[in-house]
Amino acid sequence: MTDDFDDRMHFAIDLARRAGELGLKYFRDLDNLTVESKGHQDLVSEADREVELFIRAAIAEAYPQDGIVGEEHAAVTGTTGCVWVIDPIDGTANFVRGIPAWCVVIACARDGETVVGVIHEPSTDETFYGRRGGGAFINGKPIKASNAASLSEGSAGTGLSNRASTKNVVVLLTLLLAEGGVFYRNASGALMLAYAASGRLLGYVEEHMNAWDCLAGMLLVEEAGGTVLKPDPKTVLSEGTQVIAAGKQVFPKLRALCSEAFRN
Amino acid sequence: MTDDFDDRMHFAIDLARRAGELGLKYFRDLDNLTVESKGHQDLVSEADREVELFIRAAIAEAYPQDGIVGEEHAAVTGTTGCVWVIDPIDGTANFVRGIPAWCVVIACARDGETVVGVIHEPSTDETFYGRRGGGAFINGKPIKASNAASLSEGSAGTGLSNRASTKNVVVLLTLLLAEGGVFYRNASGALMLAYAASGRLLGYVEEHMNAWDCLAGMLLVEEAGGTVLKPDPKTVLSEGTQVIAAGKQVFPKLRALCSEAFRN
Repeated sequence: MTDDFDDRMHFAIDLARRAGELGLKYFRDLDNLTVESKGHQDLVSEADREVELFIRAAIAEAYPQDGIVGEEHAAVTGTTGCVWVIDPIDGTANFVRGIPAWCVVIACARDGETVVGVIHEPSTDETFYGRRGGGAFINGKPIKASNAASLSEGSAGTGLSNRASTKNVVVLLTLLLAEGGVFYRNASGALMLAYAASGRLLGYVEEHMNAWDCLAGMLLVEEAGGTVLKPDPKTVLSEGTQVIAAGKQVFPKLRALCSEAFRN
Repeated sequence: MTDDFDDRMHFAIDLARRAGELGLKYFRDLDNLTVESKGHQDLVSEADREVELFIRAAIAEAYPQDGIVGEEHAAVTGTTGCVWVIDPIDGTANFVRGIPAWCVVIACARDGETVVGVIHEPSTDETFYGRRGGGAFINGKPIKASNAASLSEGSAGTGLSNRASTKNVVVLLTLLLAEGGVFYRNASGALMLAYAASGRLLGYVEEHMNAWDCLAGMLLVEEAGGTVLKPDPKTVLSEGTQVIAAGKQVFPKLRALCSEAFRN
């Protein structure tokens, strides 16, 4: 299956870049974008919907027997055991307000285990990608997760899920700052995971993320030599997971803070 | 003096862009960059020093009688009452780790009042600029600060100064989240102020910022129709200031949270 995953990875890299181009067209014409609110901090735009349809059509043509799970449209069941897990625009709150930190996320999972992950940031033209067992890369260059030994050596990315308590986030930040650490939140969880995979952040933690936001980035962190909290392959696609992904040495420390903060 | 400020603004726009090009050369060759730590979260690189020297040389040639205050080198006293206040790379912690969110900041103050402000983000090629009384712009297009009435309508940028208590930051975040708000921290205060000026963020707050990090952005927020906590013109250049800058309607709410959080 390795060759097969290689093919799927190259397909996903090309597709994420083309989807990013389409997203940029909407981003450059924000004044005319239709935006709806699905709830607090949960926006969706015409761009999310159209870019997802574009990605789905390309997958259906290239891998018609694979399944598809995406943020904005209904799941498609496949027959190959491979499921594409996509977020057309991660960081929609940034996108609709004109903040360039947003990305296209394409993962492929087999039997609940992620085998391909691609995160493309159109505003900076950076593509982070990898397949299981094949390493992680940005625009052709290998990347490594942080080798820092202490939380005071860099910043840790954090998210705010509307499916978890904001009080827990405050506890987490309090504990992190007490360790001499610093938090970072650019409002695109997938992008911060890509930054964790490339050692730009020490790691990334969020009490709950949906599969389309986190699977690609978690694979990249692992393939870049970092450590992740393993999600349950049986439930991650439908229910999402808690995310702790970091450089190997700081992972246990971040995990300890999360155990304390997320217990409620 | 208006024409004069117009000239200085156009000079600063061009200079910030050229300085950004120079910064990008170092950014694209990070593996060979020399970085020193001036203390926790206070890094300085060869790029900061060289880009500041480049900016200083250009100012000394164009406006030899003006003063200069910058982050990395000694202040120059002038005779015109005009002082250039510069941060060659705001967001050095991002820069040295490869995160593209960093910017060149050039302000000009007369008698302690900012009259010109330019913030240029090389990675996205966005230049935010304005002069007192002349409005605020990004790449030629007018910008407006947020017209949101509630803190739940967007994100508020926050900073972490190593000159203020991290406990106060936690209190601020707790209060903000309790209001239904969301925090944003991409680790470049000047860039987040530019985002506040363009309505991408509701506002930006930090208990203490140095003049070179905040003067340009605060002017832009004002010129974009927002409100800022006025710094003391007698001390701001030498001592810095507390920063609260936001859309007109949310400013009083953010200010109330800061009064509560920053009292210690």
